Formats: sequence, C-alpha cells, structure tokens
Amino acid sequence: MLAIRTTMKQSQPRFFVSLKVSYSTFKPAAPLSIKDINPQTVQAKYAVRGKIPIIADELRDLIKKNPQSHGLPFSKIINANIGNPQQLDQRPLTWYRQVLSILQYPALAEAVDYPQDVKDRAAVILENIGSIGAYSHSQGAPYIRESIAKFIEKRDGGYAANPNNIFLTSGASSAVSYLLQILSSDENSGFLIPIPQYPLYTATIALNNAIPIGYFLDEANHWSTNPEQIRQIILENKQKGVNIKALVVINPGNPTGSILSEQDIIELIDIAAEHGIVLIADEVYQENVFKGKFLSMKKVLYELLEQEPEVYKNVQLASLHSTSKGVSGECGQRGGYMELVGFSTEVKDIVFKLASINLCSVVSGQALMELMINPPQEGDPSYELYNAETSSIHNDLEIRADMLYRAFLQMEDIQCNKPTGAMYIFPTLDFSPEKYHKLFMRAEQSDLQPDDIYCIELLESTGICCVPGNGFGQVPGTFHLRTTFLPPGQEWIDRWLTFHETFVKKYTS
Amino acid sequence: MLAIRTTMKQSQPRFFVSLKVSYSTFKPAAPLSIKDINPQTVQAKYAVRGKIPIIADELRDLIKKNPQSHGLPFSKIINANIGNPQQLDQRPLTWYRQVLSILQYPALAEAVDYPQDVKDRAAVILENIGSIGAYSHSQGAPYIRESIAKFIEKRDGGYAANPNNIFLTSGASSAVSYLLQILSSDENSGFLIPIPQYPLYTATIALNNAIPIGYFLDEANHWSTNPEQIRQIILENKQKGVNIKALVVINPGNPTGSILSEQDIIELIDIAAEHGIVLIADEVYQENVFKGKFLSMKKVLYELLEQEPEVYKNVQLASLHSTSKGVSGECGQRGGYMELVGFSTEVKDIVFKLASINLCSVVSGQALMELMINPPQEGDPSYELYNAETSSIHNDLEIRADMLYRAFLQMEDIQCNKPTGAMYIFPTLDFSPEKYHKLFMRAEQSDLQPDDIYCIELLESTGICCVPGNGFGQVPGTFHLRTTFLPPGQEWIDRWLTFHETFVKKYTS
Repeated sequence: MLAIRTTMKQSQPRFFVSLKVSYSTFKPAAPLSIKDINPQTVQAKYAVRGKIPIIADELRDLIKKNPQSHGLPFSKIINANIGNPQQLDQRPLTWYRQVLSILQYPALAEAVDYPQDVKDRAAVILENIGSIGAYSHSQGAPYIRESIAKFIEKRDGGYAANPNNIFLTSGASSAVSYLLQILSSDENSGFLIPIPQYPLYTATIALNNAIPIGYFLDEANHWSTNPEQIRQIILENKQKGVNIKALVVINPGNPTGSILSEQDIIELIDIAAEHGIVLIADEVYQENVFKGKFLSMKKVLYELLEQEPEVYKNVQLASLHSTSKGVSGECGQRGGYMELVGFSTEVKDIVFKLASINLCSVVSGQALMELMINPPQEGDPSYELYNAETSSIHNDLEIRADMLYRAFLQMEDIQCNKPTGAMYIFPTLDFSPEKYHKLFMRAEQSDLQPDDIYCIELLESTGICCVPGNGFGQVPGTFHLRTTFLPPGQEWIDRWLTFHETFVKKYTS
Repeated sequence: MLAIRTTMKQSQPRFFVSLKVSYSTFKPAAPLSIKDINPQTVQAKYAVRGKIPIIADELRDLIKKNPQSHGLPFSKIINANIGNPQQLDQRPLTWYRQVLSILQYPALAEAVDYPQDVKDRAAVILENIGSIGAYSHSQGAPYIRESIAKFIEKRDGGYAANPNNIFLTSGASSAVSYLLQILSSDENSGFLIPIPQYPLYTATIALNNAIPIGYFLDEANHWSTNPEQIRQIILENKQKGVNIKALVVINPGNPTGSILSEQDIIELIDIAAEHGIVLIADEVYQENVFKGKFLSMKKVLYELLEQEPEVYKNVQLASLHSTSKGVSGECGQRGGYMELVGFSTEVKDIVFKLASINLCSVVSGQALMELMINPPQEGDPSYELYNAETSSIHNDLEIRADMLYRAFLQMEDIQCNKPTGAMYIFPTLDFSPEKYHKLFMRAEQSDLQPDDIYCIELLESTGICCVPGNGFGQVPGTFHLRTTFLPPGQEWIDRWLTFHETFVKKYTS
C-alpha cells in the first residue's frame, strides 16, 4: 500500500461520542450573518416570487389550516403573479403525457391502449436516447438536438440550424444563467435590458455583479423598441467605461404581452452588428400570439446575412425557447433549449463546460421538448385530439386576455394596451399625486411604492396575487402591475372591479 | 393612453428587409473571443466530462458512423468515467417508474393493471402537489419536504428535521452551486475540500473566484480524514488572510469509495464549531455501503448537541442527497435535496431567493425523491418486487466492485484500497520515475501527466473511459485514476488486464 507523502502525523484516537465524555475545550464561533455572505446574492431581487407572493403563501397556509375560521374575505388565492397554467385549470396535453408515461415505464407500451403514434414515438425516443434515468450528453441528447434543428429550420423558412449549436436547458432560466455568467467578464460588463423586463434578468445581472442598463419600451406604441434611444444609451455608457456585452430582447414581451415588428428586429440586429453586442432573444412566448405574427430573430438575421454577409457575419445571437409556456404550460417539467449562432468555437466550448458541470438538463424535459416541436401531424391517430386540445387552450387564452383587458378598460384611472401575445397584461395605474394624494402619503410613510400598496390591498381584499410594476422596471413616475390572464371565469375579474372601485374611493375621497 | 415620459424621439420608419434595400453603413464589430468572457468560466475545470470523455465521445461517433470500418480495436465505449448506472445495464426500479408514469398521465391509473399501492401513492402525490407540469413552491412541494423530514428523522434515530430547512434541488449539483455561491463573499473566501475530491467542487469554487484549500485524505488508512492536518491548514490559511467559509466532506467518498468513522465525523464537527466554518456534507452515496455503516453528519451533530448544546449550537451543516446514486441510479431525472441546519433565517432567506430565481427543481424529480425515501413496506403489494430489484442491484454492485478490485490487485504497480462504498475505485498507479523513465519522458514532452497518458492509452486500446487522478487532486508525485465499477461482466476487466501488461512493458522495457 502506498503511503501518502504528507508530513502530518495522524491524530490520536479519542473517545466516541456514545461514551458521553465531554472533551470540547474551545469557544464556539458565531454563525454566519447576512454580512458574511456574497453581497451579490443579497442584492439580487426577484419580484415574481418576492414580497407579495410570499404574503400570498402565508394567506394560503392560513386558509388551509383554518378552512372555516381564517377570517379572510375570500376562500382561495389566485396566483396571477406567475405564468403557471397548470396550477390553475389548464390540463396537460394528452399527447405529451401519454408518450412521457411510456418513457417512464417502457413496459407500459404493451399494457395499455394508447394510439399507435404515441407508442411509436416513445419507441423511437427510447431507441435513440436510452433510459431517461441516465445522464444524457451535457448539451442534451443528440437525437433531440437534431430534431430541434429541423424544427428551427422549418419555422424559419428553410434557414439551416446546426444541432451542435443547440443546448438543452432547464427551462429558459438556466440558459439565461449560462449566458450572463459567461458574458460578465468584469464589473464593467453591462447588459441592455428592456424596461419593463422579466426580473430574471436583473436578478441574474446582480448575481454576476454586472451592470443592468435599461432601455425603455414605448408604451404609447404597443411597447415597441426605440433604436435611436438604444444607440444613445450605448454611446453614453461607453463613455462611462461600461463594456456592453449583450442586448436582451423579450419577444413576445414579458410583462408587456406585445410582439416586435420586423423593422424593430432589424434595427436591433443592426445595433448588435455595429457594436459587437451579443443578442439574447428570449422567445419563450413564440406560440402565444393572438394578433400579428411572431418572427424569430434568427430568421431575420439570416435574411440579412443573405443580403449582406459582410455586415452581419459576426452577429452573435442566443435564442431561447421553453416547454413552460405556449399551449404546453409544462412549467414543472423544466424543458428548454438555446441556439447559439455566430459564437466562436472557443466561447461555445466554455458554454459546454458550464453545461457539463451541471451534468445535463432533466432528460424527461428534453423528451418533452421533442414532443412539443414535433407534434402529431394531420392523419396521425393522435392528431385530432391534439388539435382540439391545443386549439381550445389557445382560444381560452385569447378569450381570457380579452375579458381581463375589457375589465381594465372599465376601471377608473387604469390604462392598458390590448394584449397581442404572451400570458400577461401590464396596465398602467394612472394615479397622479394630486388626485391620489392619500395614496402617495401612505406610500411615503410606509416605504412602499403606490403600485406595491395597490397589489398588497388587492391581495388582502380579493386573494388575487399579482406583481407591482416596480419589480419589472417602469418609467420613473409611472406605476403598473403585471398580471397573467390565465385564471378562468369572470368571477375573479368582478371581484377585482369591485376592489378597484373601493380602492379609488379610499385614496381619492 | 399614457405617454411614456421619455425625451427620446421615435426613430424614422425604414425599409423592410423584404424590399432588399441595402442600408447598412457601419463597420461590423468582431465576435467575442475567449479574452472577452468571464475568466472564472474559462479557468474552471471538470475532468469527469473533460478531455478524455470528450475523446471517448469522438470515438463513439466514429464507431456509429462506420460500424464496420472504424479501424479501432474495440467496438464500443465503456463509460467508466461517470457514475451513470442506467447508461450501462442497470434497469430502473419498477416501483419508481410505475408511479411516475401515472404522475405523467393520471388517467392511466384507471387503464392499467398496476399494484394497488402504486395507484394509491400516485393518487396521494397528485392530491398533494397537483400536476407535475406546474411550478412547485421554489423550495420544493411542501408535501415532499414533509416526507423527507420524516425520512431524515427515522434515518437519524429520531432527531427531528424541519421541512422548512429542506430545499429540493436538481440532483445534488445545484445544491453545491447555491451553497458555494452564497458563501463566496469575496476573493479571500476559501473552501476546504478533500484531496482527492469530486471536481464539481473545484469547478464551482473557480466559478465563484474563491480559493480551494485541499486537505489530504489518508490513503494508507482507507482514505480517512486527519483532523490535525486540517487544523494546521486552517491556521496557515487564516494567517495568509484567507477567510475559510466551509469544509466539504464527501461521505461515502467520491472518488475514494471509503466511509468515514464516527470519530472522523466528530473531529470535523469540532473543527466547524471552533472556527465557525459551514459543513457541507455530500452524502449522495449513503445507500452505497458494502462494509461498515454510514452515519449521517446530522445525526452525529445532534448527538453532540444533546450532550453539549453550548458548544455545538452554532454549527451550520448543509447535507446533500440525490436520486442519482444509491440503488436508484436515476441520474437523468435530476432529483435531490439539501437540508440546512443551524443557519440563520436571514441566510436561509437568501438561499430561498436563489431557488426562486431558478423557479423550482423539476417536479417529477421531486416526486421521485419521495418514492426513494418512502418505498413500499413489507406487506405492500409492490414490496416483494421492489425488494428483489434493490437487493439484486446492491449485490451486483458489491460483486462488480470486488471483481474490479481483485483485478487491480493482480496488476503490476497498481495499489488499491478495497472499496467499501459509493460507485468508484481510485487506485494508485505506483509508477516511479526510475522504473517508468520512458513514461515520464513522454509526459514531459507532451505536457501531459503520467496518469493522463495511462487513461488516454487505456481508452484508445480498449474503449474503457476513466478519469486521471489529477482531475480529482492527489498528493504531489502520486498518480491515480478513478473508475466506476458499474460496467457488468469480466470481459472488460480482462481487456484492461491485457492492456495494463502491455502498458507496463512498453514504458519499462
């Protein structure tokens, strides 16, 4: 046996604890306080599951423990703070779940009366990726990446996608985490993010000790982008020594629910090409479009590349997709992917290493991605049901968006764009300090924003949980809230209408 | 409609790209090189999926593309580089997969002939957590955390566990990531890690720009810990200004396959108590024990607390578990948890926030954790099969460990401790520079270590992929390799024996 070459001598044997002998002679050290830990982790904020959702959880517990005597004016919490369709009434698609059940228990294929295409697809996936209980390739199973490449190619009118540029991720969140971590080269690294934004971005920027640089979406023009403003912001920040690494684009918009035009996208690509800024295209709501048409940034980039390859050849684009949104709403299954275009091999190798350190994304989520982008086709046994279920979900979402939108139009001092995509409405609380003097006084006294107070009182009066606009960013002096339009029915909306009337009276009289 | 209060003017409309009008007037910027990205992400190393496994992937692709004409002296790759049982021949447990199939497709319960306890358990889980397609509570579904708390209490002889201290994670890897990120308060933060260690730790320490401080496990004493050495290292590092934040303990050991004694554990807890150092107990192999007995650090800590509460009351312990190892081997399902003991509420709130930013761990993996820690009991319809399957896997692992161990004993200049736990053997390549002069010359010329050369030639001659000891850390001047003992049969071992003989001849003659 080889002796370890260390000069340390072995410690003397000591009594086992079971002998109950006291032997400690030191003074114990104090436990960690918040001052001892990573300040970036302290600073990061994530409003979607922040202060108000935490109060909602406490109220839910109270109701659960005292169903008859909780003393609240409502009997359940409505989580409109997060796009989580299956927590509400959305049922999973039969096609997904039947195939996934076979992947979990392959012997089932022989034991149950599923449509033949369900069994066939499960067999093909199992043959190509093996057990979903094994780690896959760090980047995701090659078979599924090939399938995603074909989906992208078809979606983008034939422009090729390379499976080696595709990384399966845990939802889109872990893709954002990889990208921002890699791009944060030092504390001068800046990230352009839309205001309002999805707070995952500001949180992850804070965790990486980088600089968030907001560009305002134009609420008066359906939350479109303003390229001149972005160029000016880049100039100002470059002068201040900020090294702008990436431009985040959320399309369809979260929290705005709006869809970018082709012209908007071209302008953003131009900015990226000119300044060598990576484009991060968060396109997880690409299936949630009610009006207008979703155009992927990749497709527009490839059109530009075809016309002027010398101008656009260096553009670096990361586009993100997920199984959590769309008509799937399979949030808990944590499926997602990102496609990297234009990145050097050496940089992609670093992304690969980060993915390897995490071993792999959940393999059932990878399989779900394959089922989402490669659904049954007309003539397949599962097609009719699949089509009926997805159409019904899509229609339901559109109807619910419209119902809530109409309610906001009725509310005094609420302004609202008609939602055209995603799962959210981001109405303005048009509360002027003059008319809502009492509200602003209360805000000042309580160290809260007027939109915080609105959301807290809404929750405490109705059980409806949504998120104040300040969690997403808003033009200074304006106030908003973000709500999903996922909850079913008119009843919750009626409660909201009543609450709003009372709120306006309370703070204006 | 409220106008956004920004002074920026709107950009002028411009031509759509479909009009094929050239309008770009700027010089395109260069793409990112490795110099532009986060240096920590460049520096991090992860050998388990590093250089040699990447060569193995290339060889596998070569075989797949040219099954008849690949020109290699073997026809398949044996991945002994990673504990991934289901990639080899291990079959998933029927109990897990039947319940999970119902969770994926609840209507199945009525349509298939599963044992009643499978249906009952699925019903209870669905009733308590709802659809596995919904995001759960950020920390994990409360029902499953309560179940884990009961498991810990039972395992640890009655010492209580609090569900609010339990976080469901994506395998144990994401727990390590949260902990090291939070504890890395600045660039003087140090982490004590065993040498050899599982390279997730050095990789994550590098990503957080913290300092890895190795303490040597004593190979001559079954890889036990040496508390005096650790105390001396702490002293030396404190004098250098290093702020030591945590002590990582991997028990049962990876890559060593050894189990810590109660005495070892007590000494480590003493060190933590005296110096206010967080204990990170990586106990993912707690079910993989062939000889001796696994004692959780939590149990030993609670025994000490009972005797001397004043001494141990501030000890902070994070213990990690996973569904990937044990007899489950469900690596791809990404289930795991960590229990935090002794942490202040303010610090736990930060962990909660990080978990919230990631939304939640995969919900099917959470359910799998519940199935693992709460299996069928004697008398339940699924018990007999469950018991037969788990016993068979456990016995197989023990037999395979023994077969491989005996092979190493036969090999010239290989030294090896008998494995008592986990899934790995970490034998010494006892190659002296004198006897293996040619090997050391070759190493010097090629910028490789002798253990790199051994592993590369093993792979290229036999298709067996394992990891050189330098990826885990080893006492300077010693050389090792880590291999799992998971692959079945004697044939691969015989190939290894033949290779070894040739290798020794080649480099000593």
